[in-house]
Amino acid sequence: MTDVMSERLAIREVIENWAVWRDAGDWERFRTVWHDDGRMMATWFQGTADEFIRVTKEGWDKGVSILHFLGGSSIDVAGHRAIAQTRMTISQRADVDGVRCDVVCTGRFCDFLEKREGRWGVVLRQPIYEKDRLDPIDPSAKLVLDRELLERFPEGYRHLAYLQTKIGFEVKPDMPGLKGPAVQALYARGASWLAGGPHCG
Amino acid sequence: MTDVMSERLAIREVIENWAVWRDAGDWERFRTVWHDDGRMMATWFQGTADEFIRVTKEGWDKGVSILHFLGGSSIDVAGHRAIAQTRMTISQRADVDGVRCDVVCTGRFCDFLEKREGRWGVVLRQPIYEKDRLDPIDPSAKLVLDRELLERFPEGYRHLAYLQTKIGFEVKPDMPGLKGPAVQALYARGASWLAGGPHCG
Amino acid sequence: MTDVMSERLAIREVIENWAVWRDAGDWERFRTVWHDDGRMMATWFQGTADEFIRVTKEGWDKGVSILHFLGGSSIDVAGHRAIAQTRMTISQRADVDGVRCDVVCTGRFCDFLEKREGRWGVVLRQPIYEKDRLDPIDPSAKLVLDRELLERFPEGYRHLAYLQTKIGFEVKPDMPGLKGPAVQALYARGASWLAGGPHCG
Repeated sequence: MTDVMSERLAIREVIENWAVWRDAGDWERFRTVWHDDGRMMATWFQGTADEFIRVTKEGWDKGVSILHFLGGSSIDVAGHRAIAQTRMTISQRADVDGVRCDVVCTGRFCDFLEKREGRWGVVLRQPIYEKDRLDPIDPSAKLVLDRELLERFPEGYRHLAYLQTKIGFEVKPDMPGLKGPAVQALYARGASWLAGGPHCG
Repeated sequence: MTDVMSERLAIREVIENWAVWRDAGDWERFRTVWHDDGRMMATWFQGTADEFIRVTKEGWDKGVSILHFLGGSSIDVAGHRAIAQTRMTISQRADVDGVRCDVVCTGRFCDFLEKREGRWGVVLRQPIYEKDRLDPIDPSAKLVLDRELLERFPEGYRHLAYLQTKIGFEVKPDMPGLKGPAVQALYARGASWLAGGPHCG
Repeated sequence: MTDVMSERLAIREVIENWAVWRDAGDWERFRTVWHDDGRMMATWFQGTADEFIRVTKEGWDKGVSILHFLGGSSIDVAGHRAIAQTRMTISQRADVDGVRCDVVCTGRFCDFLEKREGRWGVVLRQPIYEKDRLDPIDPSAKLVLDRELLERFPEGYRHLAYLQTKIGFEVKPDMPGLKGPAVQALYARGASWLAGGPHCG
């Protein structure tokens, strides 16, 4: 096995631990996948890893239901830096106008990682939101979505944003999707990160 | 690569082989992921690996449709023992009151593993059932669920239990979910397993 | 770590890169997962990797929306040859009779791989289509499927074929599914590939 494969394997462990530990509410271990200056970008949150863990735990305690699923990674390593892209879904369950619904958003985690003192950790996680849908849980439920509200958000996460807006989250309206200038800018920042520059997150 | 990473990689192979070989009906190879005293816990079955394979094969031959999907693992190794948590879905297709339906249940496989004579194998698989839903296949089908029957089961697998009950399976009513005493007890058993104790499955 | 584990890890990287790079539209890197004589089999396309990349890029530019997700691999290595089976979903979004719909097809990628000059690459990808479903995006949409058209295709990909037929693709009607002679023949070709024979794709 080559050295770079070994690094990629270590990075994969970080990324998978992120999903398993966060979704299990294992907050202590979840902290360890981040570096101290780690930053998280989500539709409903943008800030430090510490703050993300704090508000995620608060949401967990109040019954906010968000789960993650990973579907394959591609990892570029350059020395002690790396960019990992991981196919993922974010699923959230909540009431929309009194109807219990599931949203599933499919996309990619774009992770900016660094190896410090022998340990790979996340410095920035920026998801790419590619496609989503919303389905009531009860197959006999009737739900009519407000098209104007739905179309206020980019196609890649508009149902997620719809549900999150309905339950009181403020949703960032300009996250990267599958195509367009936002994701191209993210790719450029990834290349710059690998070349030793800042992540600009 | 560290030794523990190498062990985790070997364990990951066991877990992924479980899903691929079971779902492909490759019974001979599926047997090899288990140790001889392996035990399986499922909503509809609890018993030895050998018995699980026998009844799964019977179901397969009769057209029972169950598939698995894995979404990221986190593995703790302590010497020749390990606990693996793997994000997963179980999906089952069957008729509910004459309407063909899909259930998807999202959760985690909690696997108790041991390395014996150089080979990692599953000693106990206990799933954690976090969330599920049921959808008729035909988008024009009408289906009204019996709320009383649905709510007889824990939230994490009530639709799976509903469908399985309808087709004649007896469903265990106290499996662990995302939160609560059952999953906390499972975590304690996992810690005890890593410390050299019995798995109590 | 054993040598075969190292080979399997290298193969896993190829398979995961396939999904990440194709779905991101990273055509230049997507080319590198194939060998020069690589062949792709899909419901809507059968031919060389180069041609597959060309028509996939054309579709991408016209707004064809197809995404992949991987759910666990099992890999058999024999010298410089390998067969990889990977649980997967293919999801496609398109209009069906004026109603925007998602199809999700669950199955397995069966990959014939070879190591040439130190590099593992795909020589043939043949998916196995196990189960699928179609759902309108708008929860209040009405859609009645044409049962005659739907049942023209094998159970494992009939909704995918339905949607693809509606948008003008010609769909191959005899792809392998979970059971039956087509998948058994594929397994036999896999065994022959591992034994040094041709892939017959």
